[in-house]
Amino acid sequence: MIVNGQPLRPVRALPGRMAVEVIDQRVLPHQLLMRPLHSARDVFVAIREMWVRGAPLIGAVAAYGLALQARKDASDAALHNTAQLLRQSRPTAVNLAWALQRMLACVLAAPLAQRAELAWDEADAIAEDDVRVNHAIGQHGLPLLQAVAARKGRVNVLTHCNAGWLATVDWGTATSAIYQAHAAGVDVHVWVDETRPRNQGASLTAWELGQAGVPHTVIADNAGGHLMQHGQVDVCIVGCDRVAANGDACNKIGTYLKALAAHDNQIPFYVAMPTSTLDLSLADGVRDIPIEERGGRELTHISGRTASGEVVEVQLTPDGSSAGNPGFDVTPARLVTGLITEHGIVPAQEVALRQLMKGKA
Amino acid sequence: MIVNGQPLRPVRALPGRMAVEVIDQRVLPHQLLMRPLHSARDVFVAIREMWVRGAPLIGAVAAYGLALQARKDASDAALHNTAQLLRQSRPTAVNLAWALQRMLACVLAAPLAQRAELAWDEADAIAEDDVRVNHAIGQHGLPLLQAVAARKGRVNVLTHCNAGWLATVDWGTATSAIYQAHAAGVDVHVWVDETRPRNQGASLTAWELGQAGVPHTVIADNAGGHLMQHGQVDVCIVGCDRVAANGDACNKIGTYLKALAAHDNQIPFYVAMPTSTLDLSLADGVRDIPIEERGGRELTHISGRTASGEVVEVQLTPDGSSAGNPGFDVTPARLVTGLITEHGIVPAQEVALRQLMKGKA
Repeated sequence: MIVNGQPLRPVRALPGRMAVEVIDQRVLPHQLLMRPLHSARDVFVAIREMWVRGAPLIGAVAAYGLALQARKDASDAALHNTAQLLRQSRPTAVNLAWALQRMLACVLAAPLAQRAELAWDEADAIAEDDVRVNHAIGQHGLPLLQAVAARKGRVNVLTHCNAGWLATVDWGTATSAIYQAHAAGVDVHVWVDETRPRNQGASLTAWELGQAGVPHTVIADNAGGHLMQHGQVDVCIVGCDRVAANGDACNKIGTYLKALAAHDNQIPFYVAMPTSTLDLSLADGVRDIPIEERGGRELTHISGRTASGEVVEVQLTPDGSSAGNPGFDVTPARLVTGLITEHGIVPAQEVALRQLMKGKA
Repeated sequence: MIVNGQPLRPVRALPGRMAVEVIDQRVLPHQLLMRPLHSARDVFVAIREMWVRGAPLIGAVAAYGLALQARKDASDAALHNTAQLLRQSRPTAVNLAWALQRMLACVLAAPLAQRAELAWDEADAIAEDDVRVNHAIGQHGLPLLQAVAARKGRVNVLTHCNAGWLATVDWGTATSAIYQAHAAGVDVHVWVDETRPRNQGASLTAWELGQAGVPHTVIADNAGGHLMQHGQVDVCIVGCDRVAANGDACNKIGTYLKALAAHDNQIPFYVAMPTSTLDLSLADGVRDIPIEERGGRELTHISGRTASGEVVEVQLTPDGSSAGNPGFDVTPARLVTGLITEHGIVPAQEVALRQLMKGKA
C-alpha cells in the first residue's frame, strides 16, 4: 500500500539478501518504525514479541527467518532446528507451520551450495504469493460490498482486530475487499473494533484505513452488538489464524462474540481465509485448535501517546488484581456465512473445504 | 463495605446537612479521593461527569441534590426546576427519575418551612432503602452460587461493568450475592470484564473485589465467550440501568454480547434488578430505551498510572480516526434467565413483572 506517497510493505528483503526489514507494529499508530532482522533468532523474537503479527505475515517473515539461517548454515540439521524454533514462536496460527514446511520441502531437496539463494527465492515467492492470494480474496469479497451499496447507497462493514495489509504482505485479507471497493468508488464505511487487549483495531486497522482515506469509526469491542441490533452494520468481515476441517474459525479473541451478534441479527458474517490458513488435520476447531494464553500485562498496562508526544506505558488495574488473557477464540462454523478464499467464497463445511483443497492439489 | 479498616460508602451526607461527600470514581483504582458537593449544580456535574455512576447510586445522589436545593430555596418552582436539571444529567438509567419523583412527592406535600429537613430525611431514606434492597438481592442470589459450589466445589461468576457497592449506596446489585457468598465461605471466583471504554470493571469492580479479598481475574471484554465455551464460567450476573415491561434489560454496552454467549453455551444469565430500575411505561426495551451516546474521547484516550506513580492520560488511536461510543445496550428478555430483585427472582416477562409490582403497590 501507499503510505506518505511511498509504497510500503510490512516485510521486505534488504538488498544483498543478508537481512530483512519489518515495520515494528508495536509502536504504531504513533510511530512508523522500520527494524532490520539479521538472523533467525531476530525473526523468532520479532514474531514472539509481536513486532510483526497477523497469520499470513508471520508465515512470510518466518520463511525469511529460514532464509537468514540458510545464509549461515544450510545443513539439514541447522534448517530443521531453525524451523522448529520458529514454529514455536506463536502457537495458534497455522501459516507459520505451513510456510516453514514449504521452505523445507524446497530447500532440503537442493544441494548444500544452492540452498541459500534458493531459500531467499522461495521466501520471496511465499511473499509474492501472499500478495496475489489477498488480492484474489478481495476480488471475491468485492461483490458482497457492491451489492449492499447498490441497494442502500452505502455499505457499513464491521471488522475485528487487524486483518489488514499490516497482517499480510499486502492488501490484507478482511480489508482487501474494502480497499478494492473504496478504490472502485463504493461508499464504504468501516466500524473498527478496538480489539483489546492489544488494540490492533484502534492502532493498526484505524491507521491503515486512515492512510488510505477509507471512512471509518473506532468502537469499543463492546459496541458491535448494539450497532447490529440497530441496523448500523451490513456485513462483518474478519480474518482468521486457523480454520479446522469442520469450518470452525479461530481468530483474535472476541471474534466469536461478534459472530453471535451477527447471527442474532441476521447479518452476514464472513471470514477471509487464504487456504494456507486451513488446517484439515484438525477435525473440530472449538475442541482442537490450541489457544495461546498471553501474559496478563497486555491487559493491566497499555501504551499511548501523551499530550507532549511521548509514548508511555500506564497501568490500568489495581495492584494485586491478576489478569487472564487468551489470545484467540474459535467461532463455530454454524455462525459463519462463508469463507472468502483466493479461489472464491466457500461454505464453512467439511465437504466443501475438502473438495476445494482436492481441486487445488 | 470496609476499606482500609474503615466503613465506606460512595455517598454520605456530611454532618450539619449542608453538603454531601462522594467518592470521585474517576481516579480509582489509583487514588481514593472524596469530594464534597455543596449544591444541586455540583450534583449535576458529579453525575454528568461520572464522578459517581451506577443506576442506584445516581438515584441516591440526585436525591441529595434536591435536598441541597431545598436548603437554599424549597419553593415548588425551585424544586421542579432542580429536578428537571438533575433528570437530564444522564438519560438512560431510570433510577434518577424514580428517586427525584419520590423526593418531589414527599417534599412538595409539606409546608415550605419543613421542606429542607424533610428532603434530607427522604434522601437519607432513599439511601438506606437502597442498602436494604441490595442486601435482599444478594440474599436471593446467594443460593444460585451456593448450589454451583455444592456441586463443583467452586463457583466462577462472570460480571460486566461495575454493579458493585460503588454503583449503589452499599453491597452492589450484581456483587451482593458474591460478597455474601464469600462471607459465607463459598469458594467464589469472579471473571471481571474490563468494560471498555471507561474500564469500570478493571478499575472499580477489580478494586472492590480486591479490597474485600474476593478472588478475581480481570479479562478483556472479548474473552468471555471463549471462557464460556470452555466451561470456565458457571453463571453470569450483571446489573442494569433500566428494564422495560417486556423484560428487556438495558445495561452497560457489551452486556448483550455476554448474554448471547451465555445463551449459546447454556450458562445462566441473571440481571440483578432493584425494582426501582423497572420502567413499566416502556413496552419494548430494545426499541424504546434511550441509549446515551457519549464522547469519542472516552475511547481514543485513556488514563492510567505511570511507573513513577503519576496518573496521566494517553492517546490510543491515530490522529484523525473518529470514535463511536454508545454507552449502553439492551439485552432482549429471551436471553435473560431471571431478574434478581429485592423480592426474589422473577422471569424477564411482562406478566410476571406487572404481577410483581402489583403485589408491592
